[in-house]
Amino acid sequence: MAVYTDVSTDDLARFLTRYDIGELLSYKGIAEGVENSNFLVHTSKGYFILTLYEKRVAEGDLPFFIGLMEHLAARGLNCPQPVKTKDGAALGVLAGRPAAIVTFLDGLWIRKPGVGHCAAVGEALAKLHLAGGDFAMKRPNALSVESWRPLFEHAGPRGDTVRPELCNEIVGELDVLEKSWPRGLPQGVIHADLFPDNVFFLGDRLSGLIDFYFACTDTLVYDVAICLNCWCFEPDHSFNVTKGRALLKAYQAVRPLSKAECDALPVLARGAAMRFLLTRLVDWLAVPEGALVKPKDPLEYYRKLRFHQSVTSARDYGLN
Amino acid sequence: MAVYTDVSTDDLARFLTRYDIGELLSYKGIAEGVENSNFLVHTSKGYFILTLYEKRVAEGDLPFFIGLMEHLAARGLNCPQPVKTKDGAALGVLAGRPAAIVTFLDGLWIRKPGVGHCAAVGEALAKLHLAGGDFAMKRPNALSVESWRPLFEHAGPRGDTVRPELCNEIVGELDVLEKSWPRGLPQGVIHADLFPDNVFFLGDRLSGLIDFYFACTDTLVYDVAICLNCWCFEPDHSFNVTKGRALLKAYQAVRPLSKAECDALPVLARGAAMRFLLTRLVDWLAVPEGALVKPKDPLEYYRKLRFHQSVTSARDYGLN
Repeated sequence: MAVYTDVSTDDLARFLTRYDIGELLSYKGIAEGVENSNFLVHTSKGYFILTLYEKRVAEGDLPFFIGLMEHLAARGLNCPQPVKTKDGAALGVLAGRPAAIVTFLDGLWIRKPGVGHCAAVGEALAKLHLAGGDFAMKRPNALSVESWRPLFEHAGPRGDTVRPELCNEIVGELDVLEKSWPRGLPQGVIHADLFPDNVFFLGDRLSGLIDFYFACTDTLVYDVAICLNCWCFEPDHSFNVTKGRALLKAYQAVRPLSKAECDALPVLARGAAMRFLLTRLVDWLAVPEGALVKPKDPLEYYRKLRFHQSVTSARDYGLN
Repeated sequence: MAVYTDVSTDDLARFLTRYDIGELLSYKGIAEGVENSNFLVHTSKGYFILTLYEKRVAEGDLPFFIGLMEHLAARGLNCPQPVKTKDGAALGVLAGRPAAIVTFLDGLWIRKPGVGHCAAVGEALAKLHLAGGDFAMKRPNALSVESWRPLFEHAGPRGDTVRPELCNEIVGELDVLEKSWPRGLPQGVIHADLFPDNVFFLGDRLSGLIDFYFACTDTLVYDVAICLNCWCFEPDHSFNVTKGRALLKAYQAVRPLSKAECDALPVLARGAAMRFLLTRLVDWLAVPEGALVKPKDPLEYYRKLRFHQSVTSARDYGLN
């Protein structure tokens, strides 16, 4: 949930005069995204999403995110399409913040994904990787293996208040990941945060992908490892290999994985679990006692990490 | 801002099958209202607002609120209109909470109301009072003069942490209000919370009134006193008599005030300031240190109260 910045009617109406999207009829702050302020805007020409970028998103990265959405939409991927001003600009300033307007996508996110949803996500992810192939801009992954130890040290020894011995276990795992992290696999644009709430469905059909604000240039199959983490576990944290198989098979039908990519999957899955464990741990420890907003449970990803540590090959994820 | 309850797609889709409003296409939690969870729902037949009533709203009061919106909408007042199920029910249960669907109203709320907006609100308020005249249900005002001392005692001596001597001043004012509170003035349905964020405009035209969840049966002119408090002060807490005059004149053009009602206006305005001072004080003191959500400043209404204490007659509000 996030609406950090209030926008006055006058300021918004003035902002919209730069666009060719009609008269302002209503706007509502919406509880979506955790990094930015989002508004659903109704004008005489339709519905749009207005995003104000709060300080957790680096302003220098915005041209990459906006450019990527434009690039992918132009290649037929269903994702929010930046709306340009009459002068051709996709980024402006509103209420003192960088701001953009994108098209509104219908669709529903699935709270309890089934096997069919996992297959649809695998296919969409592969299409995203192919469509991103000729995107010229680069953005390093600020949340990859090099960043994890500093992130962990930022959380500090208080990690053990969340679970006894957690810090020691993290340090041990970081030692492994830093030594064995695969290099030289195919790189490209990855979404890097394709959780269920960022994937829309209409009926059984995947209707769109949203929230490209962690997208970056990184190992493509790492994106697959992230999706295995966030789509294929059950609420009791057990891995559902039928879902894993469906996701991987659908991905490979569009973009086959090389042997080297398959071999790297287990360690990449461990890394993906570590990345979400660490950012959730930092958020968890940053929230004051008694606050109304409860952050996501970091231990969910600790338990997933434990599963990945027990994996012996990519076959354990359902890879044929 | 408020989305307290998450609703799953499956649960919502099942809930909607009871209605004749088409297929679910999307829904977003919206940052609106402070008492309930609200969602903007898009179906194949249009846009609607779904409200889940959280525990701050007494379930027994819901038929009054829903019935009132229906009654007012039927009399041409622009307010959200409850949508009934195929069985004719306006209230259901979703995610374990009482839930209702109402029509979506376009419109924008005015952050900095001008004289014209105040006149429009005065007129709309009088029309609401007339339209409510034959509404059969009754609901006592749970936040009227009898409730203020218990509410204050609930906040306790910690009030002085907000401003030195605040508690003494409140006790003194409560003594005055309890003794001089007017009885026997015309009663009826009042909105009781017609703040700028509950009034929509499209251009200069008032396009709708929302949020009837404090509505009750009480002294009609008390509603006018509430509006003087929340529409006619400047950001520096000075009273703008031009705005007061515009609001009162437009109100009286639809529903003239009797001499007794005019005479009672100053003490009712003091009471209205006290009511918002007290509820804001309770909310302010209830929020833990360091919380992300900042409640509204109670001292805004302390300063307004000080103004009303200096008023000698309703002429000071602009009444001719």
